[in-house]
Amino acid sequence: MYRIEKLIDRIIDRVNINLREPAFDVGPYVRHLVPLDKFGKFYAFYGLAPHYPLHFFFTHSSLAGSYFLGRCTVDHSVLYKSDLRGDELKRKGDSFHYRGIQIPLHDDESIVVKDSFLVKTLVHNNSHDPENPEEFRIQNTVALHYANIHGAPVEGCFLGPFATVDLTTVHDCVIGAFAYVQVGELSHEQVPPGTVWIRSHDDFEFLYRFPEDVLGRYIALRPGAAPTGELMDFVESRKGEFQAVFDSVACCPGISIPEGASVSPYAVVKGATTIEGNVLVAQRAYLSDAWMGSGSNAQENCYIVDAQLQGYNVTAHGGKIVGATLGPKVFVGFNAFVRGSADAPLVIGEASIVMPHTIIDLEEAVAIPPRHVVWGHIRRARDLEDNSVAMDELVACQGEFRRGLMRFRGSGSAFVRGFQHRIEHILEENGAYYDGRHHMGHAQKGQNIIFNLIQPYPQGDMKGMYPTIDIRP
Amino acid sequence: MYRIEKLIDRIIDRVNINLREPAFDVGPYVRHLVPLDKFGKFYAFYGLAPHYPLHFFFTHSSLAGSYFLGRCTVDHSVLYKSDLRGDELKRKGDSFHYRGIQIPLHDDESIVVKDSFLVKTLVHNNSHDPENPEEFRIQNTVALHYANIHGAPVEGCFLGPFATVDLTTVHDCVIGAFAYVQVGELSHEQVPPGTVWIRSHDDFEFLYRFPEDVLGRYIALRPGAAPTGELMDFVESRKGEFQAVFDSVACCPGISIPEGASVSPYAVVKGATTIEGNVLVAQRAYLSDAWMGSGSNAQENCYIVDAQLQGYNVTAHGGKIVGATLGPKVFVGFNAFVRGSADAPLVIGEASIVMPHTIIDLEEAVAIPPRHVVWGHIRRARDLEDNSVAMDELVACQGEFRRGLMRFRGSGSAFVRGFQHRIEHILEENGAYYDGRHHMGHAQKGQNIIFNLIQPYPQGDMKGMYPTIDIRP
Repeated sequence: MYRIEKLIDRIIDRVNINLREPAFDVGPYVRHLVPLDKFGKFYAFYGLAPHYPLHFFFTHSSLAGSYFLGRCTVDHSVLYKSDLRGDELKRKGDSFHYRGIQIPLHDDESIVVKDSFLVKTLVHNNSHDPENPEEFRIQNTVALHYANIHGAPVEGCFLGPFATVDLTTVHDCVIGAFAYVQVGELSHEQVPPGTVWIRSHDDFEFLYRFPEDVLGRYIALRPGAAPTGELMDFVESRKGEFQAVFDSVACCPGISIPEGASVSPYAVVKGATTIEGNVLVAQRAYLSDAWMGSGSNAQENCYIVDAQLQGYNVTAHGGKIVGATLGPKVFVGFNAFVRGSADAPLVIGEASIVMPHTIIDLEEAVAIPPRHVVWGHIRRARDLEDNSVAMDELVACQGEFRRGLMRFRGSGSAFVRGFQHRIEHILEENGAYYDGRHHMGHAQKGQNIIFNLIQPYPQGDMKGMYPTIDIRP
Repeated sequence: MYRIEKLIDRIIDRVNINLREPAFDVGPYVRHLVPLDKFGKFYAFYGLAPHYPLHFFFTHSSLAGSYFLGRCTVDHSVLYKSDLRGDELKRKGDSFHYRGIQIPLHDDESIVVKDSFLVKTLVHNNSHDPENPEEFRIQNTVALHYANIHGAPVEGCFLGPFATVDLTTVHDCVIGAFAYVQVGELSHEQVPPGTVWIRSHDDFEFLYRFPEDVLGRYIALRPGAAPTGELMDFVESRKGEFQAVFDSVACCPGISIPEGASVSPYAVVKGATTIEGNVLVAQRAYLSDAWMGSGSNAQENCYIVDAQLQGYNVTAHGGKIVGATLGPKVFVGFNAFVRGSADAPLVIGEASIVMPHTIIDLEEAVAIPPRHVVWGHIRRARDLEDNSVAMDELVACQGEFRRGLMRFRGSGSAFVRGFQHRIEHILEENGAYYDGRHHMGHAQKGQNIIFNLIQPYPQGDMKGMYPTIDIRP
């Protein structure tokens, strides 16, 4: 038996212990999910960048095709084509603010992954757990394809494909496929697939759940098989194009990158694509005939195809935008799937918010007006009635508000202001407002990342495992 | 001041202390030899191979463009495009035989480089120092372009360009450009440039020294400048062709590689080149219109151009063969420069030995008969009179034997047998006799080396330095 098989068994045991009440067996979702051969096939890469503290420590793990930046520790884990971006980790001397309390940091923060199995998962941002501000910890956890673990320490969890946990501390939970959770803290819950759930203390709660038949067309998960559905088809049909960029050590694709912008050498950039100033294109982003207006971004697993982003557009990790024109400051949330076409174009007006895990998949032309919030499933113009609200209307809301399958309660103003504040914060972090001297962000800092390529054992019992690697300043 | 400049100063200080009697200042040969920019430009690479013990530890060093295999420790050193091949290091439990004494090894051997500056230097084999069998140590040493440190622990030494120390423990010595030393142990000596000196206890001694005017055309070293001469011109004019192979992560050049043979992805292979079975082509070898007969090899910094090697040919590190046909089992020693042409072809007969650091640079056709030993400088057929001897004649020699500028004393039989024994040993180590099951060597083991690419700090005070890296099983 190969060492990596034993490791996978160990991880399954650990996660299952955490998920014993209610009993949930992650085994059938994990075993044989990735053919053993593939663990030995892809190199891992870690970035060295002058702006981020550095400490990589990997032991007893397989890291095939995974990406690391910042301070990361990986122990007894299998990370397959996952991205761990530690460029927003907190620093020694920083203060972490939590509901009026100031928590001083005594050390640089680290991402720590232990006894976990992550497939094509994105880990980013930093720990929002006030109890552990110096460690962004992922332990005894399985996360499947295109899950996002964003500012969310998780322990004893199963995340289905395209699930997102965001700014939430999660213990012993099953987060269903394409579910989005941003609720601060969550323990011993099963979140059904296709749930979009945002809750801020007693201030507000947003809840939407995709109808099962709709969700099943886009993403479905059955034990013993890889996920299926249109979301998987969309990404899988394009994965071959990433091979060429991973085969080259060369630094930059052949496009013009203006001052202040950065395009990862591990992004696919093709067709008539334009990159304007202060644009950030992360590794594993895919741009084809894309207009990236000033200060806009494409994060990991974003696809921007036949689309115009007019500037200061935030596309969160895994957001896909096809056949669309987005006005300035339009926000497209995590794993949103936004697809128009030449026959059924999509226009999104200025400053509108496409909620995380929204599916806009057009059968006819749709124009979303400026300053609207949209969610759920939109195929025609009339679907907006049940799946959108004008921001001003929502801001005025206090108490219960229902529209279509969406239920909102609490302060609409706090909800909208919270989103707007976060979008501004993301633009700042990404360097969208860089003026050549001030407001530097990832777009500028990312220009100088260089990549180390690290390889697994090629043969024998240890095939697909990596040696122990410790990299320090 | 950049950290790397301080490090270079530190190394110069250390070496100069060792070389204080007689006073020799290495500073002018080292400072500004490599432009600072270049230290940050090239990645280093270390190979993982299932057959060799693994432990890499690098700290406070710059490793630009260097290659590592096996167990290597580098501390406070600058290794620029150097090759450290730890695939012949001794293993725990082995016995080291030294003049009838058996020395058991209590640990796997390591290459240890400390406070040293190596430029395009080849380090290979293992420590032949009976006092330190578990550590192949290079300390307080400067080695310039295309020097070979082969089975030779060195401390407090300066090695000029194309110098070779072979199976010799060297303390506090200056080894001139293109000098070859294989004398067992050497302390506080200055070996003049172009000396070829082999001594085995009281058994025999071989000594040749190139005339100054001849040597100066091929290699010259002046303080404050890079080395010059035809040897430098030859390699420098081809170095651009290596860039493409270093820019690709891809595994193999597009040639047919038969079972049992291996061609490094970091070799240049071009033109109508044929690779037969059990051939070994190491990284930084250059083959152009080369016929590599069964079991023959091309080591680091070897150039084989318009040449036919008929089989079981050993070309030692840095050997160059141009416009020549070599019969079976011809040996070409370290850094030998062997150049015929279409108008002045060279033929070397079966089992002949081209001594290390021989220059054969033809103005007319020359045929070296089988079973001859050649040395020195050969341009025409008549130069063989002063620069070769039939093996049988040398075997019969006991006592003093002079020919041309070469002086031999001792047992010709011990000398020839020693060489033959070593050539057989090299063929065995390289896997030339692999039959599909037995006699596996580097040619077979090298098929499964995979390469990790490691990068220096790209910016700031630390530019060109590497983080501390520890890689363990």
